[in-house]
Amino acid sequence: MNTQTQTTDTRSHTVNGVDLDILGETVQAIASDAELGQCRFRASNTWLGGNHNCTTVTGFYGAKQEIAHQQTFELHADEPPILAGHDTGANPVEHLLNALAACVTTSMVAHAAVRGIHIEELESELEGDLDLRGFLGLDAQVPKGFTDIRVHFRVKADPKDLETLKSLTAFSPVFNTLTQGTRVDIQVETKT
Amino acid sequence: MNTQTQTTDTRSHTVNGVDLDILGETVQAIASDAELGQCRFRASNTWLGGNHNCTTVTGFYGAKQEIAHQQTFELHADEPPILAGHDTGANPVEHLLNALAACVTTSMVAHAAVRGIHIEELESELEGDLDLRGFLGLDAQVPKGFTDIRVHFRVKADPKDLETLKSLTAFSPVFNTLTQGTRVDIQVETKT
Repeated sequence: MNTQTQTTDTRSHTVNGVDLDILGETVQAIASDAELGQCRFRASNTWLGGNHNCTTVTGFYGAKQEIAHQQTFELHADEPPILAGHDTGANPVEHLLNALAACVTTSMVAHAAVRGIHIEELESELEGDLDLRGFLGLDAQVPKGFTDIRVHFRVKADPKDLETLKSLTAFSPVFNTLTQGTRVDIQVETKT
Repeated sequence: MNTQTQTTDTRSHTVNGVDLDILGETVQAIASDAELGQCRFRASNTWLGGNHNCTTVTGFYGAKQEIAHQQTFELHADEPPILAGHDTGANPVEHLLNALAACVTTSMVAHAAVRGIHIEELESELEGDLDLRGFLGLDAQVPKGFTDIRVHFRVKADPKDLETLKSLTAFSPVFNTLTQGTRVDIQVETKT
């Protein structure tokens, strides 16, 4: 019997706000047909001048079909004045930290829900080290990307679950993309 | 003498909307004192229930000082209904594609500006392959992150510059973080 009923909606089997009936259906479907799990996520970007550009996200391919989001998401990127921008949006590497923060959080919450671990509150602070000499081409030996990223979670949950909660972040797709690396193919063609 | 005056503001030495005086000052300063290029970028995330969470970005450390953005940026992440979310924001891996799109775009534009290459228009489409069996823990052999990401640029510029423009994306910090990988350290502590 679970004592943390405040985060459990027994009508729909929801834990941590995650509907386990829906998640369970997805898991069962993919377990029985691997092709249902093959996803292609997408983004479109338009340059708006200088260091300002905007990405739109409208949908993705998954479960053997095109799936439209219920709304179009617009994400603006810019640079601060010291980096010759106008601060109209977070900069690209800050957007990368956002992607990581969102993904380790979602991964922890969803996998905790499946295991019956209740989370009351969850926050995180991220910090990544970047040496601008790489990007600026001042020293070819200096890495151009982040070398170290630190994620510091504060969680309100049963203290005995802390180590398990930490281990669940290892399921995160963004965490794995960043730590394992991925192939990126870039093509450039003329716009007519 | 440059013929593409439509993108050149001679008063402030702006090419592609990038102020080369400001960028040049930053480059010179970091070239003469490497410590000025050491940056720590940051993000704070709060879980809002279920698969919904929000990142705020307020500032960063660079040029040996704390630098506040001119506004606070809020970035929401969620999942679509098929992944047990409510579609209130792009999902974490879509945010990752946004970070990459923004960064390769900014890197191409800024490095082109420094080289006197004028860009009139620039757009890109990104697509990344993800097998959900990894995230869901259905098969430990399946990678949990993106395995391949394709970036397709369309650019309105002098066709002779196409190959150079493509090569400039190699300066992108997010591109390098994704292709080279980075260390990510995760700590979890109790929130009191």
